[in-house]
Amino acid sequence: MDDLSRLSFNQMTAERATLPQVAEACARQGIPYVGVWRHKIAQTGLEHAAGLLRDAGVKVSSVCRGGMFPAATSAEREARIEDNRRAIDEAATLGAPVLVLVCGPAPDRDIEGARRMVEDGIRAVADDAAERGVTLAIEPLHPAFAGDRSVITTLSEARRLAERIAHTHVAVVPDVYHIWWDPDLYAEIERAKGWLAGFHVNDWLVPPKEVLMNRGMMGDGVIELRRMREAVDRAGWDGPIEVEIFNEQIWAMPLDELLELTKARYLEWV
Amino acid sequence: MDDLSRLSFNQMTAERATLPQVAEACARQGIPYVGVWRHKIAQTGLEHAAGLLRDAGVKVSSVCRGGMFPAATSAEREARIEDNRRAIDEAATLGAPVLVLVCGPAPDRDIEGARRMVEDGIRAVADDAAERGVTLAIEPLHPAFAGDRSVITTLSEARRLAERIAHTHVAVVPDVYHIWWDPDLYAEIERAKGWLAGFHVNDWLVPPKEVLMNRGMMGDGVIELRRMREAVDRAGWDGPIEVEIFNEQIWAMPLDELLELTKARYLEWV
Repeated sequence: MDDLSRLSFNQMTAERATLPQVAEACARQGIPYVGVWRHKIAQTGLEHAAGLLRDAGVKVSSVCRGGMFPAATSAEREARIEDNRRAIDEAATLGAPVLVLVCGPAPDRDIEGARRMVEDGIRAVADDAAERGVTLAIEPLHPAFAGDRSVITTLSEARRLAERIAHTHVAVVPDVYHIWWDPDLYAEIERAKGWLAGFHVNDWLVPPKEVLMNRGMMGDGVIELRRMREAVDRAGWDGPIEVEIFNEQIWAMPLDELLELTKARYLEWV
Repeated sequence: MDDLSRLSFNQMTAERATLPQVAEACARQGIPYVGVWRHKIAQTGLEHAAGLLRDAGVKVSSVCRGGMFPAATSAEREARIEDNRRAIDEAATLGAPVLVLVCGPAPDRDIEGARRMVEDGIRAVADDAAERGVTLAIEPLHPAFAGDRSVITTLSEARRLAERIAHTHVAVVPDVYHIWWDPDLYAEIERAKGWLAGFHVNDWLVPPKEVLMNRGMMGDGVIELRRMREAVDRAGWDGPIEVEIFNEQIWAMPLDELLELTKARYLEWV
């Protein structure tokens, strides 16, 4: 990239820091956006978080995360839907245009049934999201998470789901970590045109060990980042690009050092 | 399943045992087939292995593994092709109708280039395989292995690759662990009709940790095994069904106890 104007620092990249610490550090380092997580908002308090982000002059690119729709009982599914309404409210209060949906695993062996629960759940809250000006962004997760985090596993599946729901405030968000391996990747990015509500970058380390924590800093893994970013650009996404990395070594870095590395790698590799 | 007539015990399910131990135990336990690995053949000696399997009356359903075609230099790619010729010879010597191909990772960030090297490699050895009566079975590996084991990640991709090569002795082998998450799974199994050369079963444990070792015994995970087996049956596969499990706890079991559990779970879940 030529400049930092699209860079967003997802706060899970600095898991040990609080939201105030991340907001202040991003402001200090000239990073215009942050991606915010709900458990971090809860620590800080929603109104306080909104105020401190405003004061720091840092915009929120997205809130993570809604979703987790499938459950064994209808009462539990309704509770999940209610929780998504709270997440939409939090995103709106922070001025975030996007709520990222991690759709959830199946409660049993019926993955197709769980996919229907995801669709039902998104349909149930789409109008609430629109009323608050928040777009629900379906994030396909790597198939390694199909059993415990998301039955939505490919960009194709996420885009087709958004197409079926066909709502002004339902879209998709590709993350390079989750989709880089896809044999139909570039055709699918093209097909996602008009459905994009974000773009997440990091890298895939080799060899993989524990799949949740295998993310690396851009340039440390095997993903063709520049090519993917350019394809996502061509598909019409010109908004924030979020750096989101779950990695113990990254988490152990001093915050300003981490932000400097993030900026340098973003400019070099994305 | 109603009986054990299609059951094959892939010897990596008993990683601590030698080939003679596995062959004798399968004969004792009434398991008609074994899947054999090359490093185990090397330990025993090829001719000796062929003799002891014949004497035990246990048939070899497949040899694992050929493949690993992509490499940075043409000399190294040629060496990989030569090694595949040796693997074909070993399979033929053991009377195995199938050599399983784990296609290999990219030597750099160019996954599409690596996929072309896989296609070139299979084309280079297909006639050799045919001459020896061995079918090359492309095994798509779970996308979690795209960076270090196989750039071929979906059943669709493996089948399309086999279709492009269009050779009498090039086919695909689905393993439930690698493909269970696929949103197009049942359509893809149907499309694989005429291209199947095997079927591998095990289970996906939740939550996943180290992805290589996350396989479980049938029934211990979240895969709809019976439904997938019936779909593979309808797609025309009526040959051996291999149980292949990489799992430290399974590996620690006494061999006969493991085979009894394998038979029971196969009859109950597959």
